[in-house]
Amino acid sequence: MLVLYTDFGFQGPYVGQMKAVLHMGAPGVPVVDLMHDAPPFDPQSSAYLLAALVGDLTPGAVVLAVVDPGVGTDRRALVVEADGRWFIGPDNGLFALTVRRAAAARAWEITWRPEKLSASFHGRDLFAPVAAEIAAAGTFDDARKGRQIALQEVDRPDWPDELERIVYVDGYGNVISGMRAENLSPNHRILVHNVEIKGEKTFASVPPDSLFWYANSSGLVEIACNRGRADRRLGVSVGTGVRVVGNQSVTAVT
Amino acid sequence: MLVLYTDFGFQGPYVGQMKAVLHMGAPGVPVVDLMHDAPPFDPQSSAYLLAALVGDLTPGAVVLAVVDPGVGTDRRALVVEADGRWFIGPDNGLFALTVRRAAAARAWEITWRPEKLSASFHGRDLFAPVAAEIAAAGTFDDARKGRQIALQEVDRPDWPDELERIVYVDGYGNVISGMRAENLSPNHRILVHNVEIKGEKTFASVPPDSLFWYANSSGLVEIACNRGRADRRLGVSVGTGVRVVGNQSVTAVT
Amino acid sequence: MLVLYTDFGFQGPYVGQMKAVLHMGAPGVPVVDLMHDAPPFDPQSSAYLLAALVGDLTPGAVVLAVVDPGVGTDRRALVVEADGRWFIGPDNGLFALTVRRAAAARAWEITWRPEKLSASFHGRDLFAPVAAEIAAAGTFDDARKGRQIALQEVDRPDWPDELERIVYVDGYGNVISGMRAENLSPNHRILVHNVEIKGEKTFASVPPDSLFWYANSSGLVEIACNRGRADRRLGVSVGTGVRVVGNQSVTAVT
Repeated sequence: MLVLYTDFGFQGPYVGQMKAVLHMGAPGVPVVDLMHDAPPFDPQSSAYLLAALVGDLTPGAVVLAVVDPGVGTDRRALVVEADGRWFIGPDNGLFALTVRRAAAARAWEITWRPEKLSASFHGRDLFAPVAAEIAAAGTFDDARKGRQIALQEVDRPDWPDELERIVYVDGYGNVISGMRAENLSPNHRILVHNVEIKGEKTFASVPPDSLFWYANSSGLVEIACNRGRADRRLGVSVGTGVRVVGNQSVTAVT
Repeated sequence: MLVLYTDFGFQGPYVGQMKAVLHMGAPGVPVVDLMHDAPPFDPQSSAYLLAALVGDLTPGAVVLAVVDPGVGTDRRALVVEADGRWFIGPDNGLFALTVRRAAAARAWEITWRPEKLSASFHGRDLFAPVAAEIAAAGTFDDARKGRQIALQEVDRPDWPDELERIVYVDGYGNVISGMRAENLSPNHRILVHNVEIKGEKTFASVPPDSLFWYANSSGLVEIACNRGRADRRLGVSVGTGVRVVGNQSVTAVT
Repeated sequence: MLVLYTDFGFQGPYVGQMKAVLHMGAPGVPVVDLMHDAPPFDPQSSAYLLAALVGDLTPGAVVLAVVDPGVGTDRRALVVEADGRWFIGPDNGLFALTVRRAAAARAWEITWRPEKLSASFHGRDLFAPVAAEIAAAGTFDDARKGRQIALQEVDRPDWPDELERIVYVDGYGNVISGMRAENLSPNHRILVHNVEIKGEKTFASVPPDSLFWYANSSGLVEIACNRGRADRRLGVSVGTGVRVVGNQSVTAVT
């Protein structure tokens, strides 16, 4: 399975041109659009989101991830294998958290260049052919196309394990943070713009128009508003800081 | 063929995560996005729209339909077989009209629960695995995963056969009602907000900017405006009432 | 491979219904959404865009292209074979430039009509079944479904080889013209609304907020603004005229 993660949006021919290359190079392999509205030009937000989203993918899945504000510069092109899944994309931190959380991983720089390489669309010209080849062959032929690099070169040591920041706002106005929920209890509060938000299990457990946080379906701390838009209620967007407030007793705003 | 009908929109990872589960569970079965902008949180509008849309699907098609404002409550999960097509989704009336119009149908409650069931995303965790299994096996293993229920439990007896209400507004501003056109003649008028609208065969038969109703490509009564937006002209949206006016001679507004 | 090019947008069931027909008629053939936001009701803009986009498609690819303001009138339905690729759609100029630039091409009128032909949705009812059949069989059975016509009937002789007009604005605000870049040098300027724009190789070669033109990834002259929206900076949209200014020395605005 080939899985696409980009900030291209569905407008224009870009996703389609990339998919045409994938189908030509890996006939018969299904292509899944995981997400095309990743925070634009923002590899750091995507690093936390992507790491949370890929956990359930079958081993052998090939993730073509293109959030690439540096296209046309000399930033490197990468292949990463993490826990049996493959990742292809630019070297800008996009895979930092995926690698850091993997039990086993390897990384390569892609040294191969296609005959025709446009300056603005490496997703189609460089990354997609490599992803298709990996999907078809089940492995990356580094002798022909790359050279192995140290895993820590893929990481961004200054990026924390849990990012206290909003990394995505979905179509319903739900606000997703870069923090995993697994270490929090419902007694923890989330502080955003001086509003303290308490934890709940589900939308159905709070009255309409109430704000709450919960462990979302990908394991991240998400702030929602039952039948409303949390983003507008809080006046927040991608990049806004959030903070965990300990278990102490405080009056939560709901 | 797996067919998706949801109110998720294409934003965010939700459609993609559901598709990844489908491809893992039913390798080689094509997945078609029938519609992801069903009227949000509105199973009744979708019941009429879905029943009109699925008529041409090949027998054996598996429709995964998720319009599910009750996710996280104890509403039941359903499998329906109607005229050889399969439907998987929540028990909230979504399949009421499909069942009512079928020549033959059966229904089951899904009693199986996955090991990991998120509170907010049963489309991915509960409905998609069942849909994939049906698509792969060609049948629903109710001994292992469900129990048959009476067909009338799927229906909503208080919902009329023809819904005199707008159930969808498309991207062009065309206004689709919950009434089938097959019993109307072009002499019937449609009354919306005190405007009487006459029937035509096609867009090309009326002058630019004229309102008219016609039997749309799915057999529903649809109000359109040649090269204009009927929704704005009429000031209507999903839920607005419409009414058929008999064959009597009246002055229609066009 | 089946490739879709339409002005339907992703809203509503239209793309999905067309795809269901394709999967039923050509099981196992992958379907790629090349673009669904072609300039609406504007076959001429699409003619230049489509000709630029299909150049890299594998021989045998079947392009179903529906930009069809004349649906419901008696405009003809076409099949075109150009350099081994197939094109199915309305006879309104949509394939004019593709044919003109092909080394070898043939054209047919589709005379076959399906049993059920809606007045408003020939994409689903007429074009998709023919496209599926061509994709499955590898050829068009004109004895059963059409008659060959002269190639020049597909062309629009009054349309120039290079269209000095904007044919598309993408989601980033990049402005695509109907002119191929292959005959221009970076010294040529592009004139839009009295603003002269100079050529560059990549986004990275200009400072933030600078306008420039470049040969885009499909070979067309495209005006962009590094990290900004060229369309808003210039106040332009599809249809706005653009002009090449010769190699003479002028002061370019950037």
